[in-house]
Amino acid sequence: MFSDDTDYFDSYSGAEVHRMMLGDRVRTEAYRDAIEAVVKPGMVVLDVGAGTGILSFFAARAGAAKVYAVDNSDILDTTRELAQANGFGDIIECIDGCAEDIQLPQKVDIIVSEWMGLYALTEAMFESVVAATHKHLRLDGQVIPAALSLHLVPIRDDKLYHEHGLGFWQNDMYGFDYSAMVGHEICDLETNTVDGSHAKALGRGAVVALFDAYTTPAESYWFKTEFTLEVDCDGPCHGFLGHFDARLSEEVMLSTSHELPLTHWRQSWFPLQERELRCGDRLEIKFRAQRDQVVDSRKPVYFLEGQVLRAEEVVDEFHYCYHSSYA
Amino acid sequence: MFSDDTDYFDSYSGAEVHRMMLGDRVRTEAYRDAIEAVVKPGMVVLDVGAGTGILSFFAARAGAAKVYAVDNSDILDTTRELAQANGFGDIIECIDGCAEDIQLPQKVDIIVSEWMGLYALTEAMFESVVAATHKHLRLDGQVIPAALSLHLVPIRDDKLYHEHGLGFWQNDMYGFDYSAMVGHEICDLETNTVDGSHAKALGRGAVVALFDAYTTPAESYWFKTEFTLEVDCDGPCHGFLGHFDARLSEEVMLSTSHELPLTHWRQSWFPLQERELRCGDRLEIKFRAQRDQVVDSRKPVYFLEGQVLRAEEVVDEFHYCYHSSYA
Repeated sequence: MFSDDTDYFDSYSGAEVHRMMLGDRVRTEAYRDAIEAVVKPGMVVLDVGAGTGILSFFAARAGAAKVYAVDNSDILDTTRELAQANGFGDIIECIDGCAEDIQLPQKVDIIVSEWMGLYALTEAMFESVVAATHKHLRLDGQVIPAALSLHLVPIRDDKLYHEHGLGFWQNDMYGFDYSAMVGHEICDLETNTVDGSHAKALGRGAVVALFDAYTTPAESYWFKTEFTLEVDCDGPCHGFLGHFDARLSEEVMLSTSHELPLTHWRQSWFPLQERELRCGDRLEIKFRAQRDQVVDSRKPVYFLEGQVLRAEEVVDEFHYCYHSSYA
Repeated sequence: MFSDDTDYFDSYSGAEVHRMMLGDRVRTEAYRDAIEAVVKPGMVVLDVGAGTGILSFFAARAGAAKVYAVDNSDILDTTRELAQANGFGDIIECIDGCAEDIQLPQKVDIIVSEWMGLYALTEAMFESVVAATHKHLRLDGQVIPAALSLHLVPIRDDKLYHEHGLGFWQNDMYGFDYSAMVGHEICDLETNTVDGSHAKALGRGAVVALFDAYTTPAESYWFKTEFTLEVDCDGPCHGFLGHFDARLSEEVMLSTSHELPLTHWRQSWFPLQERELRCGDRLEIKFRAQRDQVVDSRKPVYFLEGQVLRAEEVVDEFHYCYHSSYA
């Protein structure tokens, strides 16, 4: 447990967060399609962090003999009512608690979970899913999603930069000079949750982490990595857009890329102060995601260091620290 | 002090909230115009909750001899830099603390403050402004804003209701019945901060409270009131939009009505479960705003009770409690 866990579970007891998740048709229909492809009549399913139970309902409708819907939030009282109202009272068993702690009378065939927070990492729920998998899944069982990749893409987005980024402080401010705010903001920078659909990618982006529900140890959820990005056009760089792709089943991918329809996760923007890049530049990046230990929280802190190489020469460097901006 | 005050002041130490306020041109230009109309060369000005100092800068540019910019947030270190960078280092004195606690060497001619939170009440800063006025303002001095009115308007907005209101749970939910969520949500209802510009008013609305910086006692900030609303067209009612109008100076009003350009305050929506109203109906409303004493917070809790009178007969009643949704 993290010390902010009461707030964390409370945040799911209200209705608004569920309206947001259920209103996200890209997310929910991808889960529906994957569950319909994977769950066969008679199977036993565990739903980790069931919320209002939508994934359990998909599983029950697909013919599951038993669904354990586990959640540690007060929403579960309503989930029981919803299960009854939809005729699943005998199939879906709602269990208060954390999936890694509870006892079940049998191993399960399928574990399904929508554990992804902003840039997947915020909420830190993957560790629960891994622990629940080790404890409750039969040896040849399946996990939805089976794997998840985290991506970073260098971008240009002048509008975003001047409305919501550091460039805002260089705008005319009613006749006053506000550029001192840039230094203030860099001391306390946040990732922003943005609609990046108008951003222009300056290169192909990189996979910065891969999580596999079967083989990734829970502790590698907080990671550090190094990678290189190739810049393939000239232009000012306004930072990186982060997104994740989740493999829900063999056929169903759920992607939050800025090139695809927007989800409620949108994209996570790691803003930089504007700098010019050229086609052929190489960005050598060190990136680290760690738990915010100051507040013992489910929010990550990100450290991003970069060098810009132009014809083997370092022409620019940057060092940023970002706090997670979940609301 | 409220027990959540550390969080409250911390929320102003980052840059995002200031970008939001400064990016709100309706708000900031109204203050600019009022300050330019009221502040005369040689005057002494107190800016309560100065933030990045924009109101102090307007006052200094208008010719103030001295401006005390008071704030209890860490932003003030940057505000000092901004004052220097704009050539006001000698005129603007940045003082860490609460305006009602500090000592000043002289009475001031003008107190300026942008103290309004969502539906004005959230943030509970009016009490500080009143206390600072009693302590620091000369007898014939002026306060900006001098007065503020709170309004409630009954509305119809089908899109809002079915996307973000209780109607959402009556939509088709991937083939399942989610109507049990309505009961869940009514137990834990929030005001929503919405763009109400597409809402249709079902009547003229009412002034539910008036605050006057000179005469309103600080304790009447949390109030209860009764009023009647006249319905002037047939239609389903989806609740009430709340907004405030602030009289910044004799000539300058700052209004957050849904009929005027949107500000960062937007409108506060007090959703109801949909109910039919008819032209000629009278809504008799009891409305109460009180401090959230459970968490000893700067957030209000609102109690709204209503009766619908049709030809002198009560045809409908409602009772709601709303928590404030400030992010």
